[in-house]
Amino acid sequence: MDNRYAKMWEKLNLDLSGHDALLEVLGKFYGDIYLSQQNRLRGAEYLDFVVSEIHGLRIKELLQARERGQKVIGTFCIFVPEELTIAAGGIHVGLCAGADAGKEQAEKILPRNTCALIKSFVGFKLARLCPFFESCDLIVGETTCDGKKKTYEIFSEYVDMYVMEVPNKKGPGDRELWKSEVLKYKYKLEEMVGREITKQDLKNAIKIVNNKRKVLQRLNKLRGNIPTPISGRDVLLVNQISFYDDPVRFTEKIECLCDEIQDKVRQGEGIVNKDTPRILVCGCPMAVPNWKIPYIIESSGGVVVCEESCIGTRNIRDLVDEDGDTVDEMIDALVDRYLKIDCACFTPNEERIHNIMDLIEEYKVDGVIMYNLLFCQPYLHEAMKLERILNKKGVPVLNIETDYSMEDIGQLKTRVEAFVEMIGY
Amino acid sequence: MDNRYAKMWEKLNLDLSGHDALLEVLGKFYGDIYLSQQNRLRGAEYLDFVVSEIHGLRIKELLQARERGQKVIGTFCIFVPEELTIAAGGIHVGLCAGADAGKEQAEKILPRNTCALIKSFVGFKLARLCPFFESCDLIVGETTCDGKKKTYEIFSEYVDMYVMEVPNKKGPGDRELWKSEVLKYKYKLEEMVGREITKQDLKNAIKIVNNKRKVLQRLNKLRGNIPTPISGRDVLLVNQISFYDDPVRFTEKIECLCDEIQDKVRQGEGIVNKDTPRILVCGCPMAVPNWKIPYIIESSGGVVVCEESCIGTRNIRDLVDEDGDTVDEMIDALVDRYLKIDCACFTPNEERIHNIMDLIEEYKVDGVIMYNLLFCQPYLHEAMKLERILNKKGVPVLNIETDYSMEDIGQLKTRVEAFVEMIGY
Repeated sequence: MDNRYAKMWEKLNLDLSGHDALLEVLGKFYGDIYLSQQNRLRGAEYLDFVVSEIHGLRIKELLQARERGQKVIGTFCIFVPEELTIAAGGIHVGLCAGADAGKEQAEKILPRNTCALIKSFVGFKLARLCPFFESCDLIVGETTCDGKKKTYEIFSEYVDMYVMEVPNKKGPGDRELWKSEVLKYKYKLEEMVGREITKQDLKNAIKIVNNKRKVLQRLNKLRGNIPTPISGRDVLLVNQISFYDDPVRFTEKIECLCDEIQDKVRQGEGIVNKDTPRILVCGCPMAVPNWKIPYIIESSGGVVVCEESCIGTRNIRDLVDEDGDTVDEMIDALVDRYLKIDCACFTPNEERIHNIMDLIEEYKVDGVIMYNLLFCQPYLHEAMKLERILNKKGVPVLNIETDYSMEDIGQLKTRVEAFVEMIGY
Repeated sequence: MDNRYAKMWEKLNLDLSGHDALLEVLGKFYGDIYLSQQNRLRGAEYLDFVVSEIHGLRIKELLQARERGQKVIGTFCIFVPEELTIAAGGIHVGLCAGADAGKEQAEKILPRNTCALIKSFVGFKLARLCPFFESCDLIVGETTCDGKKKTYEIFSEYVDMYVMEVPNKKGPGDRELWKSEVLKYKYKLEEMVGREITKQDLKNAIKIVNNKRKVLQRLNKLRGNIPTPISGRDVLLVNQISFYDDPVRFTEKIECLCDEIQDKVRQGEGIVNKDTPRILVCGCPMAVPNWKIPYIIESSGGVVVCEESCIGTRNIRDLVDEDGDTVDEMIDALVDRYLKIDCACFTPNEERIHNIMDLIEEYKVDGVIMYNLLFCQPYLHEAMKLERILNKKGVPVLNIETDYSMEDIGQLKTRVEAFVEMIGY
């Protein structure tokens, strides 16, 4: 056990031996997937540090912030507006989980046909393996899929839950409903902190979160160069960390990383050669430490050049308009920005298809791998539709349905290798 | 082939040999499950007639109505207000399907982890086995689950679809959204028929549909007697037919059936003896010809005394207030009535638990069988929650997860027999 944090974890009522075992496995896993990379960027030291301290220093920071009266809000989805949390002086963290932990406990209260992501966050909580759950003042869910919507009902027996309603369509009535939900979340935060969010609070917060999105846009623009200057694994990790670390620090660190990449690009240097097949990964989010598919792709001769995912372009494409002068104008800007998210929870969701077509062009993609979590009905449906569309357009596509287990690694590797070889010709 | 309708089916572009084969199987199935019952009520002749003519005379009626300019609206869910369809001079029919037909075709466009009900309606259409699909002017879906919400997107490539948005919660903003959806459906119908729905149209339609619900309430009240005067299978069939037959004729016929049952009740006669274990079936809808579970229960020594289902009490519990004098007042009454539906699509859905508790008491239930379609996440989640609650209250409960195949009949029969025997003591 890491002695620096043992007391803290004990105080948070974690299962100490289970948690130790988890950290050990993850450390080894991280070493194999990340530290083994050749010609890695110097700026990746920040990533390594954050990961190594994700249950340590970062949790300490959260607890210290709470002592100062700041609120910590845990979320599962990019629909919960981080701008409001920050405007209320709070800290916004992602709780989506990407590892098979506590699965047995989770399956006692969830239907077996539930996706791995849901089983994972329930499992992490029930098995007392996640210090983030234990460091939150409130956990905010949303109604983006049947699985989560219904899980939150049961989960609220274990944590303090608040659920935002995301509508099923994007018509005028839906915008109104969503605006009322955004306002309700604002009131909830104001009630928690005992003061109103001011114009200036919100203006600053919008800027902070926009800056985070902008640096991720910059990173994506740079990585799009040929040859690819950074691995897909590393960019995924950057995206994952954007949900955990302090947004201002994160932005600074990733700006430095981008500067370094820019130099590499100027010198025409890449982490792979220019003929490496360029893969767009589409679909379900990959929560930390879910690095399975990018690792398979990048150890099969391909390189991931873009993630069309909530932990990827879906979360960073759109900025909040910064021109608003009143709280109401800024709320409207938030409402509009969040309703642009092309989540499969909407019907129809044609904009997602257009966005994917744009990404294929922008990133000079050679092939698309659809990443679907087993039982994730919204993305599975769209994957079938997208596969037909891409087939018609002559874009090579591989449709993968998997979970967090390692049992299908061999089979997936065979399929991905064949796909990469096929598009490499 | 039934020569009386061969030309009609051909004109509807059905797969004639496939359709013949289907009718033959269903005829045999119906004989085994329904006609074999002893001491069956005389009024059941109506049921037998409707079933025998479901693809014949009824379709002929629909086509004749269309020739007269009436519109036929096909639906999958009890959220689509039949009152509006009737007010617009239209005919409202259910398209949910309860048999494994066209599954292979359906699976080409749907994820394999899709529930049997969805696969079935898609399969019936794609395999050209259902004359109802071919006799509709418009097909109206709704956003009650991820599976249906996303299936309609693909399905709209094959049929003329219109999708109503059912919200995820029941707050004031949701009521507003739902009201706008009800109004939009009204405008859609008005556009189709080229005239406005009048106050009198709507008043009459509300009465017609309320009368249908009232006779089903009467039937349920009567069947609650001990000994049970009518089989669960027959009541399920009555409920199923309520989605297909003309509502006025249906109401008359079921009133007669109820008169007959009332006589039996007065004489203390039942179709089983008074000690037969009384089962409440809860959960997913059983669309025609899905009679699998009631048949298993009733051939295992139990009797179904109530169906807590969309094709059951969920559809008939609440009436529309008839006091409205203006169109707007009546629309409000519709909106309020439909939002009382305790569908698992809502979060939370506590009223369903209370309603089930009431049914257990009202119908003197000995045991509850939860009927869940595989992959139906909303009802599967609620079933797990309900199971825990019923266990705590000491109500025997059996949780079943199945589909439309016959492969698990043996296993289910064993489980149901053991359950019935256990609660019979």
